[in-house]
Amino acid sequence: MRQALRQLEVETKGKGLIEITREIAAFVKLERIETGLLTLFCRHTSASLLIQENADPDDQADLLSFFERAAPEQAALYVHDLEGPDDMPAHIRAALTQTQLSVPVAGGAMTLGTWQGVYLFEHRRAPHRRSVVMHLIGE
Amino acid sequence: MRQALRQLEVETKGKGLIEITREIAAFVKLERIETGLLTLFCRHTSASLLIQENADPDDQADLLSFFERAAPEQAALYVHDLEGPDDMPAHIRAALTQTQLSVPVAGGAMTLGTWQGVYLFEHRRAPHRRSVVMHLIGE
Amino acid sequence: MRQALRQLEVETKGKGLIEITREIAAFVKLERIETGLLTLFCRHTSASLLIQENADPDDQADLLSFFERAAPEQAALYVHDLEGPDDMPAHIRAALTQTQLSVPVAGGAMTLGTWQGVYLFEHRRAPHRRSVVMHLIGE
Repeated sequence: MRQALRQLEVETKGKGLIEITREIAAFVKLERIETGLLTLFCRHTSASLLIQENADPDDQADLLSFFERAAPEQAALYVHDLEGPDDMPAHIRAALTQTQLSVPVAGGAMTLGTWQGVYLFEHRRAPHRRSVVMHLIGE
Repeated sequence: MRQALRQLEVETKGKGLIEITREIAAFVKLERIETGLLTLFCRHTSASLLIQENADPDDQADLLSFFERAAPEQAALYVHDLEGPDDMPAHIRAALTQTQLSVPVAGGAMTLGTWQGVYLFEHRRAPHRRSVVMHLIGE
Repeated sequence: MRQALRQLEVETKGKGLIEITREIAAFVKLERIETGLLTLFCRHTSASLLIQENADPDDQADLLSFFERAAPEQAALYVHDLEGPDDMPAHIRAALTQTQLSVPVAGGAMTLGTWQGVYLFEHRRAPHRRSVVMHLIGE
C-alpha cells in the first residue's frame, strides 16, 4: 500500500466553475496506483469543490444563477462585510457545496460516471490563486 | 492493510430516497475488515447520497418538499432544459447534497449513529438505474 | 501503513458552531502519522460538520441567519414534528452541510488552509452531547 500527495494550484477568473478533471486524472495516472482512494481538499473558505455534468455549458450558468438567488449579495442580509459584499455569500456557497471530495480509483483511474467532471467553484468576484491538496492511497 | 471495491446497482422509482444501508453493511461484513474506512461514490449528476434519520417516513416527505421549494421545477429559472424540466433542478439538488460519503469502520461494521441510515437520493421523475461505487480500506 | 480510531465527544449549547480544530489536531499529532488521511464522521442527523473561516465571529452569525432563512422553523412547512419545531429544520440543515469530512495529513498535521477551522454545527435548540468519529490512516 502506498500514498502520494501533491498540491494543485488553480488560477480563477472570478465567479464560476473551472474544470480540473484532467489535472487530477494526470496525477492519478502518474502515480500508477491501480486500486485506491483519491481525496481532494480545497484549502479555502470562499471556493469549493463540486462534481457536475461536464457536457452542457448552460448547466453551469444555471447553477451559478441558483447560488446567486440562494445566497444573494445583499449587504442588508449580512453583518460580516469586512472583505466586500461578495465575501459572506462566498462562505455560504462554500458551506452548501464541498470542501472535500473523495473518488475511488479502479483500473488506475477515477471511477467517475460518464457525465461527471470535477470542478473548482470560485465564489469571489476577483481572480484568485486556489490550492487543492490531492491525496492518493492504494496499490 | 487490504482494499475491496464493488459497485452497487440501485433501481429507483422516480424522485425519492432509497435506503441502501443494508446492502452496504452486507458488503462491509463480507469483506471482514475490522477497522477501516468505507467510501461510497455516486456516479451520477442527478442522483446523490445522503445520511438521514431512518425512523420516521414523514422526515423523508418533508425533505423532498424542502428541495422542491429550494430548487423548483420552473422552466423560467433555467436555460438548460435539453433533458426536461426536472433535469436542472436535479443537478442543483445533487450539488446541495453529497456525491460521496465516507464512513469509518470499527468492530467490523460502519460507525453509523443509532438513527442514521444511508440513502440514495433520486432527483429525476423517471425510474433510473444508479451505480454507487463502494471502496473499503483497512484490516 | 497504520490506522487510528477515536471518538470525540462534544457538548453543545444549542444552535451554533463549535470549533473542534484543536481537539482534532491533538489526535493527529498524538498518533504521529506523517502522511495520511484523516476522516471525521458525525454520528447524528441534527448536527453536522463544516469547515469555515476561523477569524471573524460575524461570519458565524451570518451563517446561522442564512440557515434560519433557508430552512425556517415554520410548523406549516413540515409534517414531521414529533420532536419539536426545530427538529425537521435541523435535519434539512444537516443535509445541506456535511456529515463527514476528510482532510489530508502532511508533515504530521492537517493540510487546512490558513483561515480554515473545523466546526461541529449544532442544529437543535437544546444542548446535546455529540459524537464525532475520527479515523486516521497513513504512515
